[in-house]
Amino acid sequence: MPEETSRPPDPKIVQRVVEAALLEDGARSDVTTKAVVPEGQAGRAVIIAKEGGVLAGLPVAEATFAALDATVQFVPLVPDGSIISRGDRLVGIEGALPAILSGERVALNFLQQLSGVATATNELVEAVAGLHARPDGRAPARIIDTRKTTPGLRELERYAVRLGGGQNHRFNLSDGVLIKDNHIAAARDRDLSIGQIVELARRNVSHTFRVEIEVTTREEAREAVGAGADAILLDNMSAAEMRLVVEDVAGRAITEASGGVSLDTVREIAETGVDLISVGGITHSAPALDLSMELET
Amino acid sequence: MPEETSRPPDPKIVQRVVEAALLEDGARSDVTTKAVVPEGQAGRAVIIAKEGGVLAGLPVAEATFAALDATVQFVPLVPDGSIISRGDRLVGIEGALPAILSGERVALNFLQQLSGVATATNELVEAVAGLHARPDGRAPARIIDTRKTTPGLRELERYAVRLGGGQNHRFNLSDGVLIKDNHIAAARDRDLSIGQIVELARRNVSHTFRVEIEVTTREEAREAVGAGADAILLDNMSAAEMRLVVEDVAGRAITEASGGVSLDTVREIAETGVDLISVGGITHSAPALDLSMELET
Amino acid sequence: MPEETSRPPDPKIVQRVVEAALLEDGARSDVTTKAVVPEGQAGRAVIIAKEGGVLAGLPVAEATFAALDATVQFVPLVPDGSIISRGDRLVGIEGALPAILSGERVALNFLQQLSGVATATNELVEAVAGLHARPDGRAPARIIDTRKTTPGLRELERYAVRLGGGQNHRFNLSDGVLIKDNHIAAARDRDLSIGQIVELARRNVSHTFRVEIEVTTREEAREAVGAGADAILLDNMSAAEMRLVVEDVAGRAITEASGGVSLDTVREIAETGVDLISVGGITHSAPALDLSMELET
Amino acid sequence: MPEETSRPPDPKIVQRVVEAALLEDGARSDVTTKAVVPEGQAGRAVIIAKEGGVLAGLPVAEATFAALDATVQFVPLVPDGSIISRGDRLVGIEGALPAILSGERVALNFLQQLSGVATATNELVEAVAGLHARPDGRAPARIIDTRKTTPGLRELERYAVRLGGGQNHRFNLSDGVLIKDNHIAAARDRDLSIGQIVELARRNVSHTFRVEIEVTTREEAREAVGAGADAILLDNMSAAEMRLVVEDVAGRAITEASGGVSLDTVREIAETGVDLISVGGITHSAPALDLSMELET
Amino acid sequence: MPEETSRPPDPKIVQRVVEAALLEDGARSDVTTKAVVPEGQAGRAVIIAKEGGVLAGLPVAEATFAALDATVQFVPLVPDGSIISRGDRLVGIEGALPAILSGERVALNFLQQLSGVATATNELVEAVAGLHARPDGRAPARIIDTRKTTPGLRELERYAVRLGGGQNHRFNLSDGVLIKDNHIAAARDRDLSIGQIVELARRNVSHTFRVEIEVTTREEAREAVGAGADAILLDNMSAAEMRLVVEDVAGRAITEASGGVSLDTVREIAETGVDLISVGGITHSAPALDLSMELET
Amino acid sequence: MPEETSRPPDPKIVQRVVEAALLEDGARSDVTTKAVVPEGQAGRAVIIAKEGGVLAGLPVAEATFAALDATVQFVPLVPDGSIISRGDRLVGIEGALPAILSGERVALNFLQQLSGVATATNELVEAVAGLHARPDGRAPARIIDTRKTTPGLRELERYAVRLGGGQNHRFNLSDGVLIKDNHIAAARDRDLSIGQIVELARRNVSHTFRVEIEVTTREEAREAVGAGADAILLDNMSAAEMRLVVEDVAGRAITEASGGVSLDTVREIAETGVDLISVGGITHSAPALDLSMELET
Repeated sequence: MPEETSRPPDPKIVQRVVEAALLEDGARSDVTTKAVVPEGQAGRAVIIAKEGGVLAGLPVAEATFAALDATVQFVPLVPDGSIISRGDRLVGIEGALPAILSGERVALNFLQQLSGVATATNELVEAVAGLHARPDGRAPARIIDTRKTTPGLRELERYAVRLGGGQNHRFNLSDGVLIKDNHIAAARDRDLSIGQIVELARRNVSHTFRVEIEVTTREEAREAVGAGADAILLDNMSAAEMRLVVEDVAGRAITEASGGVSLDTVREIAETGVDLISVGGITHSAPALDLSMELET
Repeated sequence: MPEETSRPPDPKIVQRVVEAALLEDGARSDVTTKAVVPEGQAGRAVIIAKEGGVLAGLPVAEATFAALDATVQFVPLVPDGSIISRGDRLVGIEGALPAILSGERVALNFLQQLSGVATATNELVEAVAGLHARPDGRAPARIIDTRKTTPGLRELERYAVRLGGGQNHRFNLSDGVLIKDNHIAAARDRDLSIGQIVELARRNVSHTFRVEIEVTTREEAREAVGAGADAILLDNMSAAEMRLVVEDVAGRAITEASGGVSLDTVREIAETGVDLISVGGITHSAPALDLSMELET
Repeated sequence: MPEETSRPPDPKIVQRVVEAALLEDGARSDVTTKAVVPEGQAGRAVIIAKEGGVLAGLPVAEATFAALDATVQFVPLVPDGSIISRGDRLVGIEGALPAILSGERVALNFLQQLSGVATATNELVEAVAGLHARPDGRAPARIIDTRKTTPGLRELERYAVRLGGGQNHRFNLSDGVLIKDNHIAAARDRDLSIGQIVELARRNVSHTFRVEIEVTTREEAREAVGAGADAILLDNMSAAEMRLVVEDVAGRAITEASGGVSLDTVREIAETGVDLISVGGITHSAPALDLSMELET
Repeated sequence: MPEETSRPPDPKIVQRVVEAALLEDGARSDVTTKAVVPEGQAGRAVIIAKEGGVLAGLPVAEATFAALDATVQFVPLVPDGSIISRGDRLVGIEGALPAILSGERVALNFLQQLSGVATATNELVEAVAGLHARPDGRAPARIIDTRKTTPGLRELERYAVRLGGGQNHRFNLSDGVLIKDNHIAAARDRDLSIGQIVELARRNVSHTFRVEIEVTTREEAREAVGAGADAILLDNMSAAEMRLVVEDVAGRAITEASGGVSLDTVREIAETGVDLISVGGITHSAPALDLSMELET
Repeated sequence: MPEETSRPPDPKIVQRVVEAALLEDGARSDVTTKAVVPEGQAGRAVIIAKEGGVLAGLPVAEATFAALDATVQFVPLVPDGSIISRGDRLVGIEGALPAILSGERVALNFLQQLSGVATATNELVEAVAGLHARPDGRAPARIIDTRKTTPGLRELERYAVRLGGGQNHRFNLSDGVLIKDNHIAAARDRDLSIGQIVELARRNVSHTFRVEIEVTTREEAREAVGAGADAILLDNMSAAEMRLVVEDVAGRAITEASGGVSLDTVREIAETGVDLISVGGITHSAPALDLSMELET
Repeated sequence: MPEETSRPPDPKIVQRVVEAALLEDGARSDVTTKAVVPEGQAGRAVIIAKEGGVLAGLPVAEATFAALDATVQFVPLVPDGSIISRGDRLVGIEGALPAILSGERVALNFLQQLSGVATATNELVEAVAGLHARPDGRAPARIIDTRKTTPGLRELERYAVRLGGGQNHRFNLSDGVLIKDNHIAAARDRDLSIGQIVELARRNVSHTFRVEIEVTTREEAREAVGAGADAILLDNMSAAEMRLVVEDVAGRAITEASGGVSLDTVREIAETGVDLISVGGITHSAPALDLSMELET
């Protein structure tokens, strides 16, 4: 049974984001190209890797050129999600040169940012690879994203996370329940306990949602699970403490580790037996992957 | 005479970007907050620096909460562009808790990304600080941005660049003429020389534009300036070669260095006498600055 | 601890829907009012119930007049969600007559439709009132809505459902997992069993979602719950069969009855012990509640 | 000479309404379908009548699937406007299963609502069928709609009215003049008589409009027609009184009956000789027609 | 009883048009003003007539500055619709200089174009002034506009026509019936006579519309009126022929003269007794009225 | 080397403007055409010149019909930019008659307005034709447009200017620096000299812009050029004074004449040796060129 991890974002969403980026870059009013390249000139270009990583964003780059000129041919030479090395030829592009030149920067901006996200994700995924399944048969910890994404690009960055081997958390505030530290502080002002907060949420949301809550101590974790929390987010706990919580919970709720995750710490965190490790840095701090487009004349 | 470097982005533009981000994050359909925080509950929160850098984005964060609830008070405790240290209290927020909680992530996403850009810019600006004015009285090299920005956020990232002490290149393809390598390749296919390309551009664009062209050798630089180029972009040249070009040009055109700029190399590049040093990395690869919001109860 | 059942829809969403309706009705190009009522004439009107039911939609009606003229006073005489009788005075409106007259029909169209939904919901809620809590202490069955809503008005109709005493199912396809008959048929084509489908869904969606699946027999219900389904939708089962399923499930999953629900059958269905009863008719077939607006001169 | 009663709504308008509905339903972010149906799976479905009535809305349902996937085949098995019976197969759909499943609810919501409107209209049309032409040779009364439509769906509901055999009143406030009770009340405040109001309207609107005014007594009707009203709306008059007004008017103006129209009363009203009978209930209170979609595997 | 001729366009419509114009002119990215005028500088300006005519468009100019900065004071020194002379001071503007400078051109573009329309209209209105009422008591011919308006500005130009003393024809294709030469040619292809075309239209449009048809000969005029046309458009007829048609029609239909209308011919046309004279040139060929804005320092 | 003067506006921009115009004209709700022309009727029409001039706007007219019905054939019989004479057949149109009739007015409105602009431009261009190149080898004065365009139509009107043989100034406030009289007045309030204003602008804008400033005397012109202005706008100077300024400047800056330009004066102005002559009247006061569409049956 296949996992749908690599399903690309919906074409309509891609078109909308691409259109906004082309507008922002004035791509249809490119005074330089209009001044020096005649309307009918055709040509060929290639996108090349200037460093190694995981390629992500081909449908977005393709949509960029297509929005400017529907007749431009965009031919991926490797599939999205490929491990690429410096010097690899990634995409061939052929057709109207004005569209190719006016779309170059926007297409590369998307490809570089998304490949950066996929690459950063993949490094963490690789770092936890090879862990044995846990005694109860459950799979080892998975790397998941957060809502710490670039404003406007979440749909695309989540796709890049999947291409890098990660999985997705809830998409946004409307499609998942996660009671965080500040929600708890607000509720404590009304003298509600962790358990009461969980019950309150349970009663007020659609039955199709799970209820997840952030906990910072072993005691809070016990209280939350006891009150029916479906998942708990272990915030900035030490590996040792996480291990104890995982034992306490004993599979009655999903455990998600968060905070202080890096290439140095991720494997130790995974070994505590948590189900999920969420990492903001794969989206908010991944450096762009260096790519370039070159005309072939 | 004042420089307008820190003029904030137009409020209408900020509102549009913020609205799109709130929509993306489902902030008005925040099932968790609606489930556990009553509509009328009020409270206070503070935004705190988790690491040091340059703060950027206060008007965007303010607009985020204002879009959700116009009565929320947003009180900056330091001005935008401040150098901040870990633990600094940056902003006080007071009012409707549902709006504060539902807007938290979007506001922080903007602040973290823009402060990251301002911080990365500022590191380069500091690295070239203290250079003497050049013999001909012109100011030493300035750090400028590029079009390698995050799709949808260019206006905001350029503001962050200015807060970091950098300056802005053209905004997009519609408001500046820069003939790049691929334009030149396209024109060479039609047997045009560097000089002819410059003349072609000159004739075809409004007289209010300068004409800038990318060159890779001392000879091309000479030909471009001879044909009337107002500015030349020195692409990936060695410092030694740039120095020769600067001498050749002798002030007849603006010189912009590009490619291979890092904290290690930027001062040497500046010392060649170029007017401008453009750096994509300050926008496309700046790590987010770590900030957090905490309720005060 | 309060339930957030009556929280009104977000003002931004209300404004958008209202604006579209005013545009559709040409309210700002009302040739009749412009022809016979001078711009400055002021007056007073009242909205009156022509039949009994549950009132719903005051914030939408208020936003309608406010969109046309921000100075119009809209004063509810009873709160939204009130049980009202024929002849009741519901709202007083005072100010610019052109805005009052041009907005009348749109405001009433919203109020009538939403009050119809609230009224239809309330009849079902009343029909199951007074049932004892179940032996295991869980509350008796709740009436919930479906996605069979009027295109464009879902947010508002769900609010009306809550005012009528009902609760809400998932909002749409993006924020809840419900594997329906046609999904199952599609999966069976690939030789997947009910259990395998549940596992496939579990693996491919965010951990914040529950997995609900439609079942038509006692056997399917057993298989689904055995495979880890969090909820099951009992489609068009007889009350007798539902009762057996509820016993089998024994609280390990949520049970939702669907199909053939009417004022005649709803109490018998509730008595089977199901957790939820979902009814499309409260949104797709509720007759409008008759209301009118009268000028007071 | 053909009547254009069944001309479908403009495709652009249909596309806009459909797009809004798909957005509302999260159809492009259908987590369930994405989780359990692979991107490439194809299949066949059929839409079936669960009860009898008049079918309406095929172009809207077709546009729904086309918006999700342009390659889906949508093959009507009967034309729009057909009288259908329980069990009839109405449409065959073939192609990409994800699009078929994600669009199912939206397509059915439109079809059910519009078929409900067409069916309710048709019942009234049938109830007045067979009346003799009037002595002066004019055709017997026609059933027409009102502005009491579902916000956002007026264009579609008017199409459904035509399919049910009814005709359309003015579309909205901008394209027809109808002076109603509240306009008259506002004008009376300025001491204008019925006749003066008609003259005022006549002078202030484009010559391409007729002027219609609401009247409640025989005397008002006389005054209005005397002052040049082109049409009069008889509001909630008894059949006996309407008959007298029709005689008085003697063809000098169009007569429209309104208020208290039901299947029980409509034929008696038609027999008074009025030209038009307008009914809000065919749009605001028509129950949805029960339809379903089934995969054929 | 007042005529509503000078009612200004709806503020929402004005805002939309103004916003589009500001966007087109890049007014929020005015690089010159940002470069040389500090954000906080305040000042005063005045709009002055450089030639005489009728002033039109004050609400549009006011909305232009308000969109850029809500605190700018815009104080008309004469009302819209005034007859103005070279050198007259028309408006005082005070407040934030950046907004005043960035909005200057857009505000003047609107004022100049609309004042041009009002002025051209007024010249024709004056040319027919003083004609006696006709023997049957009807008022003499009125000058009306057409659909030959500037794309995007119709609402505003119609307002300017009213300020100039003219009246408005139907707004667009959706709110009036006018069967023109090409409709007739299309219908003749189906062997329909003028009378049959009128009847066909009558049967197929809402009863709230009048039916107007274009005629080119006395015979066509007779046939149209005989078939029930409510109005006839006399296309490019000689004054002598128009006079005969007016006699034939004898008040049974409205007569509209069209084609070849100029300052030289308009009075002779009016003297034929037609009800309306429609003129495209007042909107499509009116030269802009010369105005300027000057800072007062 | 070709000049790109006649490159048509981007199709996306054309589509947007056309769509707005069709919406404004209610073209998809054309009650007349729907009433008298059956949906399937096909036919042929031709667009004909009623007077002579320069044709401009074919891509806009084509897009108008295409937006209503993609199958309509639009066949230009002469290219855009042609000199045309009264009676010339300009375009053949064939296909669905409802689309042809409903789009007629919008298409003609665009064609007439743009051809008017092209014609007015061409008259000035012809008036300066044949001047000798200047002693320094530079080409004689070119006619350029201004920002005094019709709100919403600037992109199209600039295209028409090019077709008429003119050239374009900056597009808007965001893509060119032009310090005008009111900027100077604002700066003088802060005691800045002409030279200081030029320097301030130079420091605050991207290096890709030239700096142009308005001057009214020979002294100001000297000061501006001395301070590094790249271009100077000579406002309302006499030809004699312009000649002196041109001599003073001696090619160190571009000279643009503005104000008081007419067919009578333009040649004398050109003979002063200025580089550019900008004229607002070619866009704001050009009368529409008379064209018509006729069905061929």
